[in-house]
Amino acid sequence: MKEMEPFNLLVSHEEAEELILSNVVAIDRTESLTVDCAVGRVLAEDIIADRSVPPFDRSAMDGYAVVAEDTFNAGDQEVLLEVEGVIHAGEVSDIEVTKGHCVQIATGSPKPSGADAVVMVEFTEKKGNKILITKPVYPGANVSKLGEDIKKGDVVLSIGALLTPAKIGTISALGRTEVEVYQKPRVSVIATGTEIVQPGQPLNPGQIYDVNSFTLEAILKKNGVIVQRHPVITDDPKLLQTGIEKALESDMVVLSGGSSVGERDLLAGILEDMGQVLFHGVQIKPGKPTLFGLIHGKPVFGMPGFPTSCLSNAHIFLVPAVRKMGRLPIGTERTTRAKMGKRIVSSSGRKQFLTVRIENGIAYPVFKHSGAITSMAQADGYIMLPVNLDVIEEGEEIEVIMLD
Amino acid sequence: MKEMEPFNLLVSHEEAEELILSNVVAIDRTESLTVDCAVGRVLAEDIIADRSVPPFDRSAMDGYAVVAEDTFNAGDQEVLLEVEGVIHAGEVSDIEVTKGHCVQIATGSPKPSGADAVVMVEFTEKKGNKILITKPVYPGANVSKLGEDIKKGDVVLSIGALLTPAKIGTISALGRTEVEVYQKPRVSVIATGTEIVQPGQPLNPGQIYDVNSFTLEAILKKNGVIVQRHPVITDDPKLLQTGIEKALESDMVVLSGGSSVGERDLLAGILEDMGQVLFHGVQIKPGKPTLFGLIHGKPVFGMPGFPTSCLSNAHIFLVPAVRKMGRLPIGTERTTRAKMGKRIVSSSGRKQFLTVRIENGIAYPVFKHSGAITSMAQADGYIMLPVNLDVIEEGEEIEVIMLD
Repeated sequence: MKEMEPFNLLVSHEEAEELILSNVVAIDRTESLTVDCAVGRVLAEDIIADRSVPPFDRSAMDGYAVVAEDTFNAGDQEVLLEVEGVIHAGEVSDIEVTKGHCVQIATGSPKPSGADAVVMVEFTEKKGNKILITKPVYPGANVSKLGEDIKKGDVVLSIGALLTPAKIGTISALGRTEVEVYQKPRVSVIATGTEIVQPGQPLNPGQIYDVNSFTLEAILKKNGVIVQRHPVITDDPKLLQTGIEKALESDMVVLSGGSSVGERDLLAGILEDMGQVLFHGVQIKPGKPTLFGLIHGKPVFGMPGFPTSCLSNAHIFLVPAVRKMGRLPIGTERTTRAKMGKRIVSSSGRKQFLTVRIENGIAYPVFKHSGAITSMAQADGYIMLPVNLDVIEEGEEIEVIMLD
Repeated sequence: MKEMEPFNLLVSHEEAEELILSNVVAIDRTESLTVDCAVGRVLAEDIIADRSVPPFDRSAMDGYAVVAEDTFNAGDQEVLLEVEGVIHAGEVSDIEVTKGHCVQIATGSPKPSGADAVVMVEFTEKKGNKILITKPVYPGANVSKLGEDIKKGDVVLSIGALLTPAKIGTISALGRTEVEVYQKPRVSVIATGTEIVQPGQPLNPGQIYDVNSFTLEAILKKNGVIVQRHPVITDDPKLLQTGIEKALESDMVVLSGGSSVGERDLLAGILEDMGQVLFHGVQIKPGKPTLFGLIHGKPVFGMPGFPTSCLSNAHIFLVPAVRKMGRLPIGTERTTRAKMGKRIVSSSGRKQFLTVRIENGIAYPVFKHSGAITSMAQADGYIMLPVNLDVIEEGEEIEVIMLD
């Protein structure tokens, strides 16, 4: 790509997505975590059962362990069994159940030897020292067999599985306390621009506070990334190059800023010198001036300087990129259906992303312009207008992608 | 409620939900966090702008700052303006723009005095030392006025707002580095049962590993809770009571276990002694034996012992409870539409929750029985079958609530 003129690398939304995903590589580094800290992480090992679950034949019900054959005529004839004892959960009993006898048993308790079924307490009646069985059971009834759920040697969870709470519980069921997971990707975030000042510092005339580093850090953290926020860099080629080199210790570098043509060209030129530009500009609105390339094989993003453009492009381009790096499923944003609260006319000729506020199931546009903070302060989500769509009527149902 | 017989307190799903939400109180404690650590938290203060945004009149485009009147005949007549200098972003210029003159200006740069509009660079041409203007601009064109976005004194975000990445960026725009948020609720999780052993410990005959504490901890953490996992307690009334008393240092206590009738009655009795039982049993499947009450005004849950029941009931009852405590929006689980991969017949007469695995948009039931670990290991989500629904046909479209 080196020989191409970077400033002609204007691509469609789909082309940009494809270029990003085909050039981003999933992290191979792994780490060991205690199971209770592993929720939301991705398995880097197969979980193989080193024991069977349940580890013994156990009762699935409160009732009486019996020899099933004894009960076959229950209901028609009077079946009375002698109670030999009781087994609570966690207890092992050495009582041998023989024909004409039974043992009271609690859910989860080991089935005593000799018995081959459990009669639910609902189908029994106490008659002095004996138990009347009112309904027959077949052999195996209400008994969970050793290994019925998981057999020793089974692959219970496979490498690459996302550790949801249910899967965390599954690993605990095997008695495991540690688990090998993929490391989180590390991403460096850098704001650029001579006018940009870190919050907390005094603001001189002509300066504004850094917004994008904080928005980007929050989005990245929510998508399983360890974020390294770097100091703001002014529009100086030497300082920018040094800053990017330092940031390349991470797995990915995300720069924001360069709202002016000069600044954009500056970053593209540096990226071209240090590596290769894969696209420079996307046919979407807002957020056209997004830049993507590789330096030493590591992805580098140049995000638009305007806060709302940076926000929506981070959701559109950065989130899939870091989720692929972290081996997390892509395209799992929460969406909701809403009715459009106002007629929308799109005349951009570009695919358009419009931030909206949702109130009682109605979506109201909050987008003023890409530079406006209130366009993002009030946004609950955004809607996507295709290139060829001109109008959304008031009351029309739309899908809103939530900006959680 | 004290005088009621707790074992008759079987309620519907909706009654249970209503009893929980009307008895759970939102946390009032607040804490100060740095803005970059506050994503996902809830604002405990109004964010009031102590400055205007933008803090100065600035150019919204790359171009030339002009006296708009000079350009009114552009296009029809040759309008040539003398260039007095250039203003980059972050620079303040003392150039005064007068009629017949202009200043080159970058996006985001402060508008020089005298100028009242910016002509985009696209509508200009360099002619020697002068600039030809090819299109008229009206006064104010391409200028973002001081305070146009946010005025000093505006309430930019209100108390109770969830701090999404966009709202984190909004606070940064005001130069703030700290923010007051509500504290996370603290919840104690305790597994009970003589047969339950903590993972990592040796397993004796008749014993099984604790699953529910880990599943519950993971679900609670994902819903903004600080979890205190307590040691397993055996089925001993004295030990249970002492354990619950200790756990009441938290804002809520969640016990799991008691799959057998005896154990369930034990917990209900203790809860009745120490406080009040609000319901004991819900008409849903699985997960009927769920218990809810208050001790010293603090909510106490008794979750079913069977892992899949505990998992689905945690999503149905616990998640709304802790989200209300933490002031987080309720009912924001991710859902997806899928086609049923197999005909389902429900004959329970209770509302039913069925765990499913999703593959290529098709939902396959993975539910074997409430005691089965594999019923949850393979679950991507669950579907809800109303009380009166008997059959879902293969291929029918259903909504799946995701178990992320």
